[in-house]
Amino acid sequence: MSSSPIRIALFGAGRIGQVHAKNIIMESQAELVVIADPFIDAAKRLAAISDAEAVATPEEVFLRDDIDAVIISSPTSTHVDLIIRAVTNNLFVLCEKPIDLDILAVQECQREIDHRSSQVMLGFNRRFDPSFNAIQRRVADGEIGRLEQLIIISRDPAPAPRDYLAGSGGIFRDMTIHDLDMARFFVPEIVEVTASGANSFSDEIARLDDFDSATVTLRGSSEELITIINSRHCDYGYDQRLEAFGSEGMLSASNLGPTSVKKHTSSATNQADPHFPFFLERYEAAYREELRAFIQGIRTGEPFATSFEDGLAALQLADAATMSARDGQTVPTQGTVFTA
Amino acid sequence: MSSSPIRIALFGAGRIGQVHAKNIIMESQAELVVIADPFIDAAKRLAAISDAEAVATPEEVFLRDDIDAVIISSPTSTHVDLIIRAVTNNLFVLCEKPIDLDILAVQECQREIDHRSSQVMLGFNRRFDPSFNAIQRRVADGEIGRLEQLIIISRDPAPAPRDYLAGSGGIFRDMTIHDLDMARFFVPEIVEVTASGANSFSDEIARLDDFDSATVTLRGSSEELITIINSRHCDYGYDQRLEAFGSEGMLSASNLGPTSVKKHTSSATNQADPHFPFFLERYEAAYREELRAFIQGIRTGEPFATSFEDGLAALQLADAATMSARDGQTVPTQGTVFTA
Amino acid sequence: MSSSPIRIALFGAGRIGQVHAKNIIMESQAELVVIADPFIDAAKRLAAISDAEAVATPEEVFLRDDIDAVIISSPTSTHVDLIIRAVTNNLFVLCEKPIDLDILAVQECQREIDHRSSQVMLGFNRRFDPSFNAIQRRVADGEIGRLEQLIIISRDPAPAPRDYLAGSGGIFRDMTIHDLDMARFFVPEIVEVTASGANSFSDEIARLDDFDSATVTLRGSSEELITIINSRHCDYGYDQRLEAFGSEGMLSASNLGPTSVKKHTSSATNQADPHFPFFLERYEAAYREELRAFIQGIRTGEPFATSFEDGLAALQLADAATMSARDGQTVPTQGTVFTA
Amino acid sequence: MSSSPIRIALFGAGRIGQVHAKNIIMESQAELVVIADPFIDAAKRLAAISDAEAVATPEEVFLRDDIDAVIISSPTSTHVDLIIRAVTNNLFVLCEKPIDLDILAVQECQREIDHRSSQVMLGFNRRFDPSFNAIQRRVADGEIGRLEQLIIISRDPAPAPRDYLAGSGGIFRDMTIHDLDMARFFVPEIVEVTASGANSFSDEIARLDDFDSATVTLRGSSEELITIINSRHCDYGYDQRLEAFGSEGMLSASNLGPTSVKKHTSSATNQADPHFPFFLERYEAAYREELRAFIQGIRTGEPFATSFEDGLAALQLADAATMSARDGQTVPTQGTVFTA
Repeated sequence: MSSSPIRIALFGAGRIGQVHAKNIIMESQAELVVIADPFIDAAKRLAAISDAEAVATPEEVFLRDDIDAVIISSPTSTHVDLIIRAVTNNLFVLCEKPIDLDILAVQECQREIDHRSSQVMLGFNRRFDPSFNAIQRRVADGEIGRLEQLIIISRDPAPAPRDYLAGSGGIFRDMTIHDLDMARFFVPEIVEVTASGANSFSDEIARLDDFDSATVTLRGSSEELITIINSRHCDYGYDQRLEAFGSEGMLSASNLGPTSVKKHTSSATNQADPHFPFFLERYEAAYREELRAFIQGIRTGEPFATSFEDGLAALQLADAATMSARDGQTVPTQGTVFTA
Repeated sequence: MSSSPIRIALFGAGRIGQVHAKNIIMESQAELVVIADPFIDAAKRLAAISDAEAVATPEEVFLRDDIDAVIISSPTSTHVDLIIRAVTNNLFVLCEKPIDLDILAVQECQREIDHRSSQVMLGFNRRFDPSFNAIQRRVADGEIGRLEQLIIISRDPAPAPRDYLAGSGGIFRDMTIHDLDMARFFVPEIVEVTASGANSFSDEIARLDDFDSATVTLRGSSEELITIINSRHCDYGYDQRLEAFGSEGMLSASNLGPTSVKKHTSSATNQADPHFPFFLERYEAAYREELRAFIQGIRTGEPFATSFEDGLAALQLADAATMSARDGQTVPTQGTVFTA
Repeated sequence: MSSSPIRIALFGAGRIGQVHAKNIIMESQAELVVIADPFIDAAKRLAAISDAEAVATPEEVFLRDDIDAVIISSPTSTHVDLIIRAVTNNLFVLCEKPIDLDILAVQECQREIDHRSSQVMLGFNRRFDPSFNAIQRRVADGEIGRLEQLIIISRDPAPAPRDYLAGSGGIFRDMTIHDLDMARFFVPEIVEVTASGANSFSDEIARLDDFDSATVTLRGSSEELITIINSRHCDYGYDQRLEAFGSEGMLSASNLGPTSVKKHTSSATNQADPHFPFFLERYEAAYREELRAFIQGIRTGEPFATSFEDGLAALQLADAATMSARDGQTVPTQGTVFTA
Repeated sequence: MSSSPIRIALFGAGRIGQVHAKNIIMESQAELVVIADPFIDAAKRLAAISDAEAVATPEEVFLRDDIDAVIISSPTSTHVDLIIRAVTNNLFVLCEKPIDLDILAVQECQREIDHRSSQVMLGFNRRFDPSFNAIQRRVADGEIGRLEQLIIISRDPAPAPRDYLAGSGGIFRDMTIHDLDMARFFVPEIVEVTASGANSFSDEIARLDDFDSATVTLRGSSEELITIINSRHCDYGYDQRLEAFGSEGMLSASNLGPTSVKKHTSSATNQADPHFPFFLERYEAAYREELRAFIQGIRTGEPFATSFEDGLAALQLADAATMSARDGQTVPTQGTVFTA
């Protein structure tokens, strides 16, 4: 592929679509060509800040012959269809997680795109967070010896609206899935899933037969114990932390805020800013790095850092966690490939 | 009881016995009268730094009529017998955990001392750690709203010798029991135990059919989710941390070291001292506060902060965790009182 | 002024010029029109990443009638001339500090541009650092009561090359000048300057009759005591910190690094990344905010946050510090306006 | 000297006398024999918690032949007389700073005790603070290369009562003197003193013709630049920090508090406890270590860590700072020995 910019079509002009659009604009190696959203006004507003065209339908994208890649940040229900059409059109794909909430649909999609799944990169943005990414690399380099335990703390600032939650597939498929992928970033082969859910604060979520809080223990193929701790709310912002414990030390990443300012008074010392409120701020750098990795993968032909199969595996683990939390039993997986 | 010093007999002149002896000496309201240890030389050495008498047998203690209380820091196998004899002699008892490794022996002991178990305080020293204690008090005061999640990280610097481990009752009864009690310090009623054990690094421990690493999830009676993370080794010292997450904030306690010094160089910034290596250093203040609470309880007649029943409950939870880790199933408890 | 982008000419395609160029490209409200540098190749390379034209001489800039503003990041010796020509051409100016090393030249420039100095913004980038900026605002808002003391620690990672140092005007005019402006950001009226210089490590700098280390104490008009601590080298990176101490508390800003990762081992705990190595990384956000403030000032017509007069005042304080360090005497200033 | 406990007489049963008394009681190598205080009730109260005798006059101490050493924590005006009498009686002396507020009186005292000043240890307790002490040792060991700069921040929580301040000798002799000694702990030879005082908040202190705030710059004999920053009040507690900057890194010590607890809420994260309020809490360990160093010095015959001459030198520097702040001039000293 030539060194001219990668020409990109963007599906979805919502919150995450806007993040991708701005990153493409700032990235000299990429060019935003067209933005598709049935809410054509949203597409137009976003197109106005770039030189892109705004369209309402996927057809208007796939009829073009001037694009190299698509970024899919439209609703989950559209993902499988858009992936299949993009791959069929020989386009590279960066698709937001999840591929689909239904494992059968994902497996069907996999069969459809067959051995061309390598054209697809999954948008597990947290793998590209500079701190988490650095820890993973340093662990892989042996800096703390053999990895034995991993702790992933992940709490959202507040529950999503009821309508969203009702169609979310439950806390494990919607929220924990990011942490399950983070676990696999460190330990690709998970052999066992044990999960507990709780209804700690939200009657609304309870009425949806879902949990507002959860803990998951995973066992890796080399006896690693991985703990995930989730809550659908968090008074002090978006809580995103990680600790990798090895035979020769520990690497940890803490929350981030906008400045390094600390305040000291008679009532408390060391008072720092509130943490970043949610993912747009917290993972700003991560989205940027993710786009770079996508471009880099297209340019070099090397496998994407986060594959279609990673998306499948995370959903399988989420399904296993859902079962375990319901039945009070540890659920074995066949390597990463678990069948519900 | 008069305001003259509480007169104390100490069983066991080992590491923890020495800690107790020094604390009694420094405590104006207590007096160390006699130290009993079959290794009479150890008893004598310890007696030399106080004005106490050294004896080899419990009989020489219980025949005296000039003591108010006993502190039991002799081997676990002696605890039940010494508790019964002390209580029978109308003495107050501060006994190191565990009461016994066998829940039946503990229950038998409970029946023997009958309704006089209020004379017994259990040595769950960590409840008296200034940081953990402050968090528990602040949570109880509602400072972070309703408690929803608790994370207890507890890693020993290195495994105990093989002989000790062989008779320890396994990681849950020997090591996790402290964390199970810490969980009950915040959430007295535990309704469910889910545990996973792993053999991450020690073939020796694996050969003992025991785990070197573990995670435990407890569910409290108000849907609290409590996570315990254990390892039998830790490169960076004694890892003892806690986070209490509530509806209105989070309180955390980190590790401690001997100074506040930090070093900044071209290879790393903010380099702090190694943490305290093990419990004698880390819980120095806790042991001191524990002794004060014991004296205070004797003086006031108010219930001890850590009761005989707390010792029983922690062992029941440890038994449940042992079962859960073996069977891969969540184990329900009947409130705190679980029967194996 | 219309809402079309501000059209900018950039003088100087060196390190800081490159920072400005990239920020203009990313800023939708600004457009980079032309880059002037006698090293025409450097100008061309920078022009290549934007749609700007590259020229070798100022004339080629000032002959154009399609630019609104200039950014001057060429060598100090060119500043006065370019400022005068730009102001004469009715252009807005963002000029890197210092205006000139010679106070008389600055005063002459001030007379030349007369009452149009309001067109000029000085590039004291640190005022726009999110942490320092937040502290200044919070102090101004009375959050720590009355400001009493200010500590500014500012150490470069390594001395500039000998040739640069030889023409730098000495440590106070070249390096401390940033800190003197930071002092004035908090306390505009400085009434007294006391400085000490030292030759702690560099024979080369000593041979230039300059200092490699310095401390300065300033007294503000309301008895504020301000301490500046400088070194021309720093093993652990670029050391840029600030503490504002008031009657009701203290606000501090610490150094920054690329991630939040900390490492814990048996030799040291809490080991963070090295700090950012130098100003390009440390003040990346500050340069971006500075450009925004420049654009905002042009749009609104409100006075620039950092004025031509701020540049003059900082140089006057630097001259006073130079005198004080030489003579061992406190040097009074007439408010901020001191005459050498 | 035999290994029997050092028998100690204590002058002064005030706040610091009480600290010493308790430390002696806890120290197995020392024995508190007699407490002298004209407020005989205070002496008696303190004697009651030990087995010591309480007396009202120095005579009753010096007539005894059963004491090895005296600790002087009576008012400053009594120090010279008690030192001379104790030394004359062949007793070892631990004397609180300052020896006297008048340098001539100190020099006269020095002549009186002649070449027996080695019997006297000065109570510069901060040298024994575990953090400051560790930094000094590590700097001396070359861990950060050659020491170039030292920053000492020292702020009291609140001004002492007016009567005390009126007789205190001024901020430099009363408060800064501790920091001047800390400077000499790292850099024994100070060649130059530059000081600035300010009246930032207290009219009362201004009326006493004294300062409530001060900064001092010292130059060491190897071009070290030392900065001391003082305030007579501090909203967030007792501010006692230190940074040693060397050619190969930096070592810093921060403030301390009672626990490691941090609180995280929507308004601020990382909120730590208030710092220790004042010196009794902050320097608890330092006083204990100071007593041990005193005992150790007596036992081994090695020079005391803080000598009579250190007391003299600190006062000389305080006098120089007083002059410098008054005259706005740098004051040279002859090595450490400066003559007013």
